[in-house]
Amino acid sequence: MSIGIVGGGIIGLSIAFELVERGRTDITVYDRDPTQGAGLVAAGMLAPTAEAGFGEEVLQDLMSESMRRWPSFAERVEARTGTPIAYRTDGTLLVALTADDQAEVDRLIGFYHRAGRPIEPLSGRALRELEPLLAPRVRGGARAPGDHQVDPRRLLRALRMLPVRFEARDVVDLSTLQDDVIIVANGIGAAALTGLPVRPVKGQLLRLRGAEPLLRHVVRGIAAGRDVYLVPRADGELIVGATEEERGADRTVTAGGLLDLLRPAADLLPGVAELVLSETLAGLRPSTPDNAPVIDRLESPPVIVAAGHHRNGVLLAPATAAAVAETVIDGATNIDITAFRAGRFT
Amino acid sequence: MSIGIVGGGIIGLSIAFELVERGRTDITVYDRDPTQGAGLVAAGMLAPTAEAGFGEEVLQDLMSESMRRWPSFAERVEARTGTPIAYRTDGTLLVALTADDQAEVDRLIGFYHRAGRPIEPLSGRALRELEPLLAPRVRGGARAPGDHQVDPRRLLRALRMLPVRFEARDVVDLSTLQDDVIIVANGIGAAALTGLPVRPVKGQLLRLRGAEPLLRHVVRGIAAGRDVYLVPRADGELIVGATEEERGADRTVTAGGLLDLLRPAADLLPGVAELVLSETLAGLRPSTPDNAPVIDRLESPPVIVAAGHHRNGVLLAPATAAAVAETVIDGATNIDITAFRAGRFT
Repeated sequence: MSIGIVGGGIIGLSIAFELVERGRTDITVYDRDPTQGAGLVAAGMLAPTAEAGFGEEVLQDLMSESMRRWPSFAERVEARTGTPIAYRTDGTLLVALTADDQAEVDRLIGFYHRAGRPIEPLSGRALRELEPLLAPRVRGGARAPGDHQVDPRRLLRALRMLPVRFEARDVVDLSTLQDDVIIVANGIGAAALTGLPVRPVKGQLLRLRGAEPLLRHVVRGIAAGRDVYLVPRADGELIVGATEEERGADRTVTAGGLLDLLRPAADLLPGVAELVLSETLAGLRPSTPDNAPVIDRLESPPVIVAAGHHRNGVLLAPATAAAVAETVIDGATNIDITAFRAGRFT
Repeated sequence: MSIGIVGGGIIGLSIAFELVERGRTDITVYDRDPTQGAGLVAAGMLAPTAEAGFGEEVLQDLMSESMRRWPSFAERVEARTGTPIAYRTDGTLLVALTADDQAEVDRLIGFYHRAGRPIEPLSGRALRELEPLLAPRVRGGARAPGDHQVDPRRLLRALRMLPVRFEARDVVDLSTLQDDVIIVANGIGAAALTGLPVRPVKGQLLRLRGAEPLLRHVVRGIAAGRDVYLVPRADGELIVGATEEERGADRTVTAGGLLDLLRPAADLLPGVAELVLSETLAGLRPSTPDNAPVIDRLESPPVIVAAGHHRNGVLLAPATAAAVAETVIDGATNIDITAFRAGRFT
């Protein structure tokens, strides 16, 4: 049985990985330009982010399932590809600058509680003991010891080592593919191939560089109402992300995007001002009307689709990939994906 | 008589130009990397900027002399090189965001008056009539109809067309040059060659791009105490400059530099947020202890030096170049450069 996967990003390659893990060898991944995937502008924070709105509970269940799978997924990816993906388990911090920001952190703390995830409220002073370079006026926050982290670029680099065929091809017509099974996992490209309502949500992200890391923890910060995450890498790089903009398929880096990231970053961590700009990026997250993914077997076109993971593609990759691989091989999966059917949009 | 010019930036090449204009042909310009000159991070605002401190009057006199020469200089450069340099005479605006910023503009208005330069105070409303996209809360400002503008990149491109020899060489020892006359005009590099106290003052600058120009005038803005200039180009580019940082020979673009430019730019002209980042730059201005240039014939080493023009190299290029060319050819110049002797630092 030959399997064709349209899309060589985090989701497509994770599916390829789980198929390879299950002994499949006849796999082709179609992607004209794998450098354009949403994963390349992801920070790799593995934290629950589903909030009020579409089925907090069902999306949270899939996130929990996927987070549970992440340690084994990371270990198996590294073992099979021989490539480290910088999986870290040292938890994240929520950090609020003002009293209003603290109210938002309190809301997030409630969300962690409802999701049954560990969360420990911390004073500003306690936060500064953990991270001495946080701004003196940081009001408070919390520690989420169960939130993990991976480097999405390293993950992609690892998955590119898989023993599958990579075909640099932009699939515009599924009938041109000869594979016995076709999996559509090309993010925003899934809209054109399947008719599903997957739209681009732009995200801008910066990479800064300093001699020494300014932080030990990943920080999810809120400063004067502006969200930002700060992801330190061991080599002194600090990733600052990410905007969320409804601008269609626009990949430009804008002055407003830079301001929206740098302002809260420097407010929370003044040392950011001294860091050197090393890269600016803009990517397109594939999002659905309810911002939850579609993971389903379609009748027309006759494909399996896994797309629309919005900001959660890295987090949801292990569960999505296992569900799809099981569906391909066994015709069904034990992972509960009933809430993620395409039919909810028709 | 062979002439060697060390330094292929705005000052060095302007001197070469005035020598060529006076019939000299045996000219060599030494510069290992002309893309590193301070002129490449200049905005090209031809406005008086000498303020209280070192001899406002004498530096202002040289600026006035140079501004008087600019129209002819521009015309002759374009005629000789066949290359347009985007010389514009439509004046600049001073724009203040807050009441405190207005006080600073009032101080600048006083400076224009003392310098005998035209300046017309304007209300916020009058400014917005001239520039409808300025922020509604802009408090006031002024119009300086006598301030002109040139594109420093185009000027450099034009001057590179001169019929002189360009030698890509880093001159570290003047005794290796065989020329009859040697002119040292290599900015911060003049310190090592002459012992003069020329230090680097870092400037960061951004280029943004939009479909249409947001401004018709060059704007010198002050927003919550932060200075910024906004230079629109006809093709929709907007130059935002420039920081002034004492950081030695550091050419990095930093998060703090971006913030220092983008914050006042977006405060004064909200449409900036929508513009696309097209380039970030950092350059090193050559500055002396009094931030005025050295234009002088030295005894030891036996060279003519023209360096240390700080933020005013583009503005001062015509007067400096004429003074040096006359000194080379006639042994003296009618331009009063007595205040700019090297001896003032010993």
